[in-house]
Amino acid sequence: MVQPTEIRVPYNDLVKVLAGILVKLGFEQDRAHRAACLFADASRDGVYSHGVNRFPRFIRALRNGVVDPKATPVLVSKFGALERWDGRLGPGMLNAQQCMERAIALSRANGIGFVALANTNHWMRGGNYGWQAADAGVIGICWTNTMPNLPPWGASDPRLGNNPVIIAVPRAEGHLVLDMAMSQFSYGAIESYRLRGQMLPVPGGFTVDGELTSDPAAIEQSYRPLPIGYWKGSGLALMLDVLASVLSGGKATHELPSDPERETSLSQVFIAIDPASIGPPERMSEIADAVVDDLHRSRSSGEPVRYPGEQVLKRRRDNLERGIPVNAAIWSDIGHGSVSK
Amino acid sequence: MVQPTEIRVPYNDLVKVLAGILVKLGFEQDRAHRAACLFADASRDGVYSHGVNRFPRFIRALRNGVVDPKATPVLVSKFGALERWDGRLGPGMLNAQQCMERAIALSRANGIGFVALANTNHWMRGGNYGWQAADAGVIGICWTNTMPNLPPWGASDPRLGNNPVIIAVPRAEGHLVLDMAMSQFSYGAIESYRLRGQMLPVPGGFTVDGELTSDPAAIEQSYRPLPIGYWKGSGLALMLDVLASVLSGGKATHELPSDPERETSLSQVFIAIDPASIGPPERMSEIADAVVDDLHRSRSSGEPVRYPGEQVLKRRRDNLERGIPVNAAIWSDIGHGSVSK
Repeated sequence: MVQPTEIRVPYNDLVKVLAGILVKLGFEQDRAHRAACLFADASRDGVYSHGVNRFPRFIRALRNGVVDPKATPVLVSKFGALERWDGRLGPGMLNAQQCMERAIALSRANGIGFVALANTNHWMRGGNYGWQAADAGVIGICWTNTMPNLPPWGASDPRLGNNPVIIAVPRAEGHLVLDMAMSQFSYGAIESYRLRGQMLPVPGGFTVDGELTSDPAAIEQSYRPLPIGYWKGSGLALMLDVLASVLSGGKATHELPSDPERETSLSQVFIAIDPASIGPPERMSEIADAVVDDLHRSRSSGEPVRYPGEQVLKRRRDNLERGIPVNAAIWSDIGHGSVSK
Repeated sequence: MVQPTEIRVPYNDLVKVLAGILVKLGFEQDRAHRAACLFADASRDGVYSHGVNRFPRFIRALRNGVVDPKATPVLVSKFGALERWDGRLGPGMLNAQQCMERAIALSRANGIGFVALANTNHWMRGGNYGWQAADAGVIGICWTNTMPNLPPWGASDPRLGNNPVIIAVPRAEGHLVLDMAMSQFSYGAIESYRLRGQMLPVPGGFTVDGELTSDPAAIEQSYRPLPIGYWKGSGLALMLDVLASVLSGGKATHELPSDPERETSLSQVFIAIDPASIGPPERMSEIADAVVDDLHRSRSSGEPVRYPGEQVLKRRRDNLERGIPVNAAIWSDIGHGSVSK
């Protein structure tokens, strides 16, 4: 739902305004357009926290020198279907898009493509690269490490990243796209619950005394959000970080600055798998459709059970028709051609 | 700890006895030995539930015709680094070992190898195949689907599998090996808590009335264990099933018999990545070691924080020295050359 503090902006206007700002900040025309689209796409699909509403922080990262607008990834080494790239601290969303594109190309030639990327910046909405792969008709899997923001299970200090992972499977009726971080709730979500005066629906972290709690304010105070599945998400977050840093040769979470304004030098992984290279595509569609149909037959007393990404196309249509929701203060700032520092 | 109902058997004796039984049930000598080792390895490493204590169920599956002792996987199709195999309902642990071996070989030639396996049987301890890859000096990732045993988030009927996933990263000081299913607790773990008269340490499922509970008996009654991270683990379980079935061309969870004694025709994925193909191995070791060192510096008021798999080598040494713990009744049964039906 659009809040009173939000307005709706036509998609094309949004892209044009954002791209214009990026050009002034040193982006080439085409790259400015592509980066603007990735911000607009996130908001269009309902991921407002990592879409246009995050644009001001990205602008600050450009002005702070955290992101180099002109830097593009370079190939460091390759062997077969496996490649290592250096993101040279360029814009994270463009680096990620290019590396997923490269993984897709590798999958056309090898069935699978695997690109590990070092020295990149925040990719904003990770789901964009899953959709990119699925739109190309291939399976996409990618993940990133992050700065330390999640205590390992059994500890009180944040040493793990909440390392989002994306898994996308193409399907004519609507891709299946899972986009999830390793913390049960993001800090953004925790803040939203607090502002609405609500408790979290399930425990989402610890109090300063180490008790599990559903109170958002208590978690903001302790800085101890909960990994999904307690010890399990803690282990998975660690492994995703190790895989990304070992394979890219880049930095691991513990080496990254613990400041959202300075978070940089991330390590990421992009995998594409071309299912049509080893079997008839129509059979694969049947399999995926049958899984979805079975899920939809679930016995639920509340909301119908949905597959990951099921709501996206509906929200996308709605937002394209009615305009993309943007925070009014941010848009006003952007509309004046300057973004608050 | 060894319970009074457990005895300790030397590793080699264990393998010899198990292999002897398998030969009588139709295994070729070499395959009997390898399968026996995989059972013994699981118990040796402390995964008793999927080691020798599960041998009687495997024998029943052989006698029921669920598992064909002589069947071996055949290559169905291949393209580059991607292969599809048909397990022909052979022994799940041998099929899995062979497919990980094949993925490792593909990774030597292509940097990465990806094998999707249809029509296989329960692989017992999934961690075995992670250790197999890491012992070969490569990264191993594998997962399996299972029969329906986990309700999707928001539903009360089990339609998802608890689909275990394994991620293994080789390291001289001890591999990092994560081996985790999508349910917060296995039914085996839930039963153990009930038998000890204990509550689960965190909520692990629902009552028949749909309330979250830590009472093991209530979860056994409702048959509604909890996915890790609630909606997140539910989504991840679904995606792992879709990936395994779509890529192998095999069956998805909803097509599998809902009976542990009849569970068969599983779909699995085996991935190996050779990090040495794209960068200096010593640098990769440094990166992994540094992540482990940082984790060990975690602030904990209780047990020290450990990485996935950290306890295995110690337990392995201990069990090899003192004998492998096996349930006494099961060993007595096995020792008499017959296994209870």
